[in-house]
Order: sequence, then structure tokens, then C-alpha cells
Amino acid sequence: MSWLDEVNFNRDGLVAATAQDHHTGRILMQAWMNREALALTAKEQQAVYWSRSRGKLWRKGESSGHVQKLHELRLDCDGDSILLVVEQLGGIACHTGRESCFYRKLTEEGQWLTTDGVLKSPDAIYGAFSEQADKSGNSDNG
Amino acid sequence: MSWLDEVNFNRDGLVAATAQDHHTGRILMQAWMNREALALTAKEQQAVYWSRSRGKLWRKGESSGHVQKLHELRLDCDGDSILLVVEQLGGIACHTGRESCFYRKLTEEGQWLTTDGVLKSPDAIYGAFSEQADKSGNSDNG
Repeated sequence: MSWLDEVNFNRDGLVAATAQDHHTGRILMQAWMNREALALTAKEQQAVYWSRSRGKLWRKGESSGHVQKLHELRLDCDGDSILLVVEQLGGIACHTGRESCFYRKLTEEGQWLTTDGVLKSPDAIYGAFSEQADKSGNSDNG
Repeated sequence: MSWLDEVNFNRDGLVAATAQDHHTGRILMQAWMNREALALTAKEQQAVYWSRSRGKLWRKGESSGHVQKLHELRLDCDGDSILLVVEQLGGIACHTGRESCFYRKLTEEGQWLTTDGVLKSPDAIYGAFSEQADKSGNSDNG
């Protein structure tokens, strides 16, 4: 029995995957993996997600260079959530050019306040005229 | 416009919610919230999830006492993932009696290795003859 068989993929064949920075402990992003993406993540020792918007495998950093080198892969108690502890190359995980995708914080007044600055503009990361393939990677709400 | 309108709930009306320990930075668990659970979490300043298995609101700690006091609520770039930075009462988030639900780590040999010990037995937490309502809370793969 493979370790992959112990993972409970949902009806879409996906499992939630959260990336945490190995050095800072910060939560960088939350995306999705199918069985192949998870197998490749372990094999290549870098984060490979499933892009729901593009319907294909998404090697994190494939267009940005912001690869997530795998430090540790963890599974939760009911097997339907994966935690990746990673080294975030470039120090930027978010397509907006920020360290973390979780750059908004709820204030007491009930507003989402942006607490993180842009470290590098998306244009500089992806090229102003590029397809920004990686940029759309985590913006897949479908 | 409410801050809740900026959250992208999925077709089931849910958003992924990940809890991180405020003190240790450890990822404690990943569960789900509907709009009401998220609103209550902000209002009551403690984690309220939606239990998919039981089909009802689940105030974390309602039967275990392991309440998660809210320190910070964050939203990701595409609005479909919530991060809760919490104070974990009792130091136990998992229904197995461990600090974190992510207590298994993938070894180089391709096995899920349990790295965390049980801090308190589930029987001691929930009572041997209880309904263990909270216990089943994060075991909802449905």
C-alpha cells in the first residue's frame, strides 16, 4: 500500500495543501493537489499543485522562479489536508509579489486591512507582457 | 459591503480555514467554515467551524474544552482561504489528543510516520462513554 492511498482526496480528486515557511513559520499559501501533484511533490522535493483554474499541474515557481523546496510533508488526522514545510525561494509566495497570500487581516472595525507590502511587482516577477501563467495559479476559485 | 462578502465560499458554501498557534507558530488543524461560522468566529473571538460530517456549526472545544481563542483572522489573495491565528486552550487541537492534527510526516522511505505523542487520551478528553461530539468534528470527509 502506497502512502498516497492514505490520503483522502475529495470528490474532485483533490486535497487541500498548505505551505508554511520553514524559517519564519509563516503560512505562505493554501492551494490544492491531486494525486499526481502530491506524488510529484514528494518525488521532486518541491511543491507541485493542481491549478483548478487552468486544469493542469502547476509547478510552483515555474514562471516566477519562486520555487518552494520541500522540507517536510505532513498529513492530518483524517487524511484530507496536507502541510508542506518549505523553503520559499525568493521569499515571495504570492502572485501579488508579497511574502504570503494571507496579507489581509480583519480589523476590529470589520475591514480587511492589507498588512504586507509588495516586495516585487508582479510585472517584474512575470514580465509585463507575459502570460503570467503562474500568477493565475492560486487565483483559481473554480 | 460586509467583509464577509469579500470571502469566496465554494459551491458548498464553505471556505477552508487553517488554525495556527499564536505562540509556537505550529499549524494546528485545517477545517471548514460557512458564512455563519466565519461571522461567529469574528463575533465571539473564538474558532467556530462548520462540521461537514455532522452538518452543523461546531464551536471548537465545545465538548473538549479545547477552545481556540482568536488572535488574528486573515484572508488570502483570492479570498477562498482563511487563516486563524489562535491561542489553543489546553495545548491540544486534535481529537486524537495531540497538539496538532498534522502529526504524521512522510519519511524518505515513503511512510507516514507519527512524530507527535498523545498529550491526553481521547477518553480522558471526551469521557469514555460520551458522544464524543467534538471528537468527530474534524473527521468529516463527507
